Amino acid sequence: MADTPENTPLARRDGRTPFQLRSVTFRNNIAPHATGSTLVEWGDTRVICAATVEERVPRWMREKNVEGGWVTAEYSMLPYSTLDRKQRDISRGRIDGRSQEIQRLIGRSLRAAVDLKALGHRTIWIDCDVLQADGSTRTASITGGYVALSLAIRQLAGQGKLEDSPLIQAVAAVSTGILDGTPVLDLCYREDIETDVDLNVVMTSRGEFVELQGTAENTTFGTEALDGMLSLARQGIRSLFNLQQQTLEEAG
Amino acid sequence: MADTPENTPLARRDGRTPFQLRSVTFRNNIAPHATGSTLVEWGDTRVICAATVEERVPRWMREKNVEGGWVTAEYSMLPYSTLDRKQRDISRGRIDGRSQEIQRLIGRSLRAAVDLKALGHRTIWIDCDVLQADGSTRTASITGGYVALSLAIRQLAGQGKLEDSPLIQAVAAVSTGILDGTPVLDLCYREDIETDVDLNVVMTSRGEFVELQGTAENTTFGTEALDGMLSLARQGIRSLFNLQQQTLEEAG
Amino acid sequence: MADTPENTPLARRDGRTPFQLRSVTFRNNIAPHATGSTLVEWGDTRVICAATVEERVPRWMREKNVEGGWVTAEYSMLPYSTLDRKQRDISRGRIDGRSQEIQRLIGRSLRAAVDLKALGHRTIWIDCDVLQADGSTRTASITGGYVALSLAIRQLAGQGKLEDSPLIQAVAAVSTGILDGTPVLDLCYREDIETDVDLNVVMTSRGEFVELQGTAENTTFGTEALDGMLSLARQGIRSLFNLQQQTLEEAG
Amino acid sequence: MADTPENTPLARRDGRTPFQLRSVTFRNNIAPHATGSTLVEWGDTRVICAATVEERVPRWMREKNVEGGWVTAEYSMLPYSTLDRKQRDISRGRIDGRSQEIQRLIGRSLRAAVDLKALGHRTIWIDCDVLQADGSTRTASITGGYVALSLAIRQLAGQGKLEDSPLIQAVAAVSTGILDGTPVLDLCYREDIETDVDLNVVMTSRGEFVELQGTAENTTFGTEALDGMLSLARQGIRSLFNLQQQTLEEAG
Amino acid sequence: MADTPENTPLARRDGRTPFQLRSVTFRNNIAPHATGSTLVEWGDTRVICAATVEERVPRWMREKNVEGGWVTAEYSMLPYSTLDRKQRDISRGRIDGRSQEIQRLIGRSLRAAVDLKALGHRTIWIDCDVLQADGSTRTASITGGYVALSLAIRQLAGQGKLEDSPLIQAVAAVSTGILDGTPVLDLCYREDIETDVDLNVVMTSRGEFVELQGTAENTTFGTEALDGMLSLARQGIRSLFNLQQQTLEEAG
Amino acid sequence: MADTPENTPLARRDGRTPFQLRSVTFRNNIAPHATGSTLVEWGDTRVICAATVEERVPRWMREKNVEGGWVTAEYSMLPYSTLDRKQRDISRGRIDGRSQEIQRLIGRSLRAAVDLKALGHRTIWIDCDVLQADGSTRTASITGGYVALSLAIRQLAGQGKLEDSPLIQAVAAVSTGILDGTPVLDLCYREDIETDVDLNVVMTSRGEFVELQGTAENTTFGTEALDGMLSLARQGIRSLFNLQQQTLEEAG
Repeated sequence: MADTPENTPLARRDGRTPFQLRSVTFRNNIAPHATGSTLVEWGDTRVICAATVEERVPRWMREKNVEGGWVTAEYSMLPYSTLDRKQRDISRGRIDGRSQEIQRLIGRSLRAAVDLKALGHRTIWIDCDVLQADGSTRTASITGGYVALSLAIRQLAGQGKLEDSPLIQAVAAVSTGILDGTPVLDLCYREDIETDVDLNVVMTSRGEFVELQGTAENTTFGTEALDGMLSLARQGIRSLFNLQQQTLEEAG
Repeated sequence: MADTPENTPLARRDGRTPFQLRSVTFRNNIAPHATGSTLVEWGDTRVICAATVEERVPRWMREKNVEGGWVTAEYSMLPYSTLDRKQRDISRGRIDGRSQEIQRLIGRSLRAAVDLKALGHRTIWIDCDVLQADGSTRTASITGGYVALSLAIRQLAGQGKLEDSPLIQAVAAVSTGILDGTPVLDLCYREDIETDVDLNVVMTSRGEFVELQGTAENTTFGTEALDGMLSLARQGIRSLFNLQQQTLEEAG
Repeated sequence: MADTPENTPLARRDGRTPFQLRSVTFRNNIAPHATGSTLVEWGDTRVICAATVEERVPRWMREKNVEGGWVTAEYSMLPYSTLDRKQRDISRGRIDGRSQEIQRLIGRSLRAAVDLKALGHRTIWIDCDVLQADGSTRTASITGGYVALSLAIRQLAGQGKLEDSPLIQAVAAVSTGILDGTPVLDLCYREDIETDVDLNVVMTSRGEFVELQGTAENTTFGTEALDGMLSLARQGIRSLFNLQQQTLEEAG
Repeated sequence: MADTPENTPLARRDGRTPFQLRSVTFRNNIAPHATGSTLVEWGDTRVICAATVEERVPRWMREKNVEGGWVTAEYSMLPYSTLDRKQRDISRGRIDGRSQEIQRLIGRSLRAAVDLKALGHRTIWIDCDVLQADGSTRTASITGGYVALSLAIRQLAGQGKLEDSPLIQAVAAVSTGILDGTPVLDLCYREDIETDVDLNVVMTSRGEFVELQGTAENTTFGTEALDGMLSLARQGIRSLFNLQQQTLEEAG
Repeated sequence: MADTPENTPLARRDGRTPFQLRSVTFRNNIAPHATGSTLVEWGDTRVICAATVEERVPRWMREKNVEGGWVTAEYSMLPYSTLDRKQRDISRGRIDGRSQEIQRLIGRSLRAAVDLKALGHRTIWIDCDVLQADGSTRTASITGGYVALSLAIRQLAGQGKLEDSPLIQAVAAVSTGILDGTPVLDLCYREDIETDVDLNVVMTSRGEFVELQGTAENTTFGTEALDGMLSLARQGIRSLFNLQQQTLEEAG
Repeated sequence: MADTPENTPLARRDGRTPFQLRSVTFRNNIAPHATGSTLVEWGDTRVICAATVEERVPRWMREKNVEGGWVTAEYSMLPYSTLDRKQRDISRGRIDGRSQEIQRLIGRSLRAAVDLKALGHRTIWIDCDVLQADGSTRTASITGGYVALSLAIRQLAGQGKLEDSPLIQAVAAVSTGILDGTPVLDLCYREDIETDVDLNVVMTSRGEFVELQGTAENTTFGTEALDGMLSLARQGIRSLFNLQQQTLEEAG
């Protein structure tokens, strides 16, 4: 970056500045049989997020007599979401490791939004099916999953099944990375391939962390890079909370 | 039905006459990474149909040196497509028998639309993912699958990969059944449960049959009922060919 | 078929006329540990059909408190039933789609023979294992399965476990196809390969349909062909009812 | 056995003396699509043994460039072979440990009959499917498997595919056990349950051992018992060699 | 062996005489979370044997209301125990046949050491994980498994969970084979490959057999060879009982 | 913590200060058939780390013609490593999600230590089998995995298979968490259960991050907590680099 004038931001493939999110919109009620659902369109990434309610809790909770409810997630890429067709999990006979990691992350992240005791003795399933993948599918799943979850809880409340709302705070997520030495917000697929460091951040509307996953492949990163990425992430997540609130108010 | 005059046709739950299709529309290009795709909305049933191209043929064709290409289908219900959440195939560890029958049917049906030799040495995968299920998901998959297939072939032709179009005729499908003794067209889920006879018909735009699947559960049916259902099916499929042609012209 | 004199029927590989069944015989009690069993020899096709009784009903019936009993089928080709050895399902790790379709068809067909409420709270399993395959294995399984089922019910009645016989009608099945433009009855393997249209018909002894499965691969068929095949099927099935009745009377 | 006079042999459930085999017969060519096949009827035990030829060798032989051919076995109990229906392997998702042990034993035993180099670059599969189980299914499988194998090799020789016969000796097997302190030959199912010691012996027509498997459950056995069982086994196996030779001569 | 002077024993690769065991030692408590554990070092073979207690019995015992407890084993080779890395069972999707045979053998053998009724309503799992394989892994597992089992039972007794010790006798195992016509004791991997006959013997401290597994691959063996191997086995197992007793006394 | 004087550090269950590692030692060459191996004892946690070399690269590298080699890891808990016996992966039929995440993390972390091009066209497998689990099994696996990897590379170099050492830097890992509001280093199992925030840090000997995984379950964490944990992690990892270097020098 030697000859770049100091005040010129890094030019990104799609013209964004380093600290700019892609356009993020929600089309709610995309799957009406679900209790709550939304189609997140996050740049060229599209994920169907659907929350469905099951009036019982997982076996381990029943066996240990744990009170309250549970929130769990499943994540899957539809075969036509990628440029080359991706074989279905069932055809290969197992979920790939990456999908399993992501669905565990989505579940943990969204449980931070909910007071599980106040949820009552039920499970909310958050299904995230990627319709089109252009990077950031896990952060889109968490951010959209929160919208689907909120719509489902509103629906349960409307049916008189909840005394108090179990929602305690909003949760959203964003990716950051280092590109040509500069921290950038919200990597698209091409950027994700070009950079070897990425940091996924999940935060609550109270400004605290739920998850932090930084990974370097073929390289490493120092403290300064970490601080730069964390700062971008905080700012990006604030925008996402606004977008979540707006779509939920419109749905209201 | 007390005050219905005798020559008034059967009143259906949703107000349709016995020989009336539900509203059928196509939203093309729902999954832009696919070579061709459409979202069929067929009453309250919604199916994502996506055609993707793989530049090689199945192993059995390579081993037997069969010329030309192949068309195959996969069918799956998304977990939130039904009123009670449906477990994913991968969580149960196998595709259920019903899905397997349906995906074999879709594949055979759509191969009737294509001159496999003219397709060249490639496979077209037709993925049908049910977003919302209200009966007739298999006929919606075949009818929408034809649209996705046509869009994909058009795309291949536009890329100069095909000398002549391998499309030889349109294919569409419809369900019929016997309700209170009367043949009815296009059963929604509730009707499907109430009747014990259903006949799924797949036809070509030249007016011939590709598949005929009549099933009675808890009862049986005679020749007259068969003729009544076949006659309704022919009429319904003619309407579907018009709708397919219209959406393909608009996409053109 | 231009120069064939009008009254000369199509010459078939094995010398049969178009409307002639192959020889069909039953060797009952082939598997004495089963409650009822028979070895159907249908031309060169041989299928072991065995009915065994389990004194409980499937889980879904217990969970939904459905009254009465159940009839279900499993179909499998023994590895040495085909000209090239067929790998066992367990070696490939899954039942192939074709076998799964066939066993679902056999189950549905045989349930039409039984008043499930009168059967009592038990399951009858119909196992069909193909010892030698020369076409028509699914119709042989249904037709022989009915004999095994009847023998098992007789056995149960003899043990005082049934108040009234739950058998309400006989069920049999036959295949038909179009060969050189002519409808023919009961396709052997070679004919099955040469023709691209086949129609499997399952009927009751009262003359009604239980299942109708017409499939065209690489071609299509019109109404006239359908009518020709249905007419042959009716006639063939009548003969099969006579053979079933005869073997059951002899076993009596 | 206090008051039994000394020279009175133990009375067995089915009236046999301790040193008496059950009736053993072979119905050859039971599965004509196999290269060689037989139905062994061994008392009330019935096993279909079929040998099929595959014109290639297992992967590990190809990878290590091992010369000659291979003989391998698969063993399975048909669901209706036992008094309570036995679930199919594919329904449980795996072969049970007992079946796997038995099929490995059958394969090893029959390889002792064959000069694998003289067999040529091919695999002979020995499939053993138990139609009715009343004890001794593994010894019936080995003894009948040898007959099927011989018929298959004769068939291959007749087709000019073998220069010299790869058969070097006959192989047969028998079970023995200790019942009320007395060694007995050829345990039926009820005896097998009552005794806690059984010894399965596989021998060649030259009088040598191929396999020896002695197992005590809930007890142990000493040298005298071992010698008694071995002596019975030798005698029983001699009879089996005669029966094998006789059926093969008749088939000749 | 014609010109070998009569009193010169066969020279073995590692300098042992034909009737000599390799060095066998036990390092107890290798896995402190287990109820009892030992690391057997048997020449260059190393096996971790661990006994853990589960306070319930297998399903089949509960369903049949069988009194007392159960002892069962699992056997696995760690991927780095062999000279070429061995793929994990879970990566191949199934336990290989050999491992399954061995774990069934270990379980049966160790049940002979225990009065299952006196064990109480609990299961003892014996896990045998091979850290390094140089032949005799199954006999090392049984012999070491007995030590782990004894330590676990001592622990249970110390916790006041047992009225009387359920241990009724010691169990140990050894392999023998025929090398250049001479019976030899305790085959290492290289010897195991060179010989085609091996006999594994499991005995109790009262001098009786529990299991006897003789196998010939590519050859056969006669009575004299059997007697020679049995005699060596008896002697080897006596040494093993001493070593077991010694380590248990030291642990005491 | 009301009456704790301000300068008194938090008292931990095992008497450690908040910034104190448990004792960490390495027993090298625990599995001599591996190319390099060590048993890490990390407090009461024990992990066998073994590196084995396969002279080929994974399929995806061959298919894409990627130069150089690969490093990959497998992680598994032995059944007796936990207080209640943990079922083997193969018995449940799948690797659990947690193990899969951990083995992917180990693989990525150790690849940071290696110049894959200089490794040559081979794969190094790092197997981590937990013999005893008391928290920090993933960080023990990474830290011990580096030792095993170094020993294996030294072995390869000694065999003349490497021109230059592909090792570019050391890699080690440590866990941190928040306990009663105080950041603490290296959580044992009990502490891991009591705290709801943990941060696993993987660093290189050059002081940069490879992985950062912070997770909050039932709570969240702020920037100050993050900084506190990162600071402890840096210090702990420096100690681990010394211990690694020391054991490798002694092995030298």
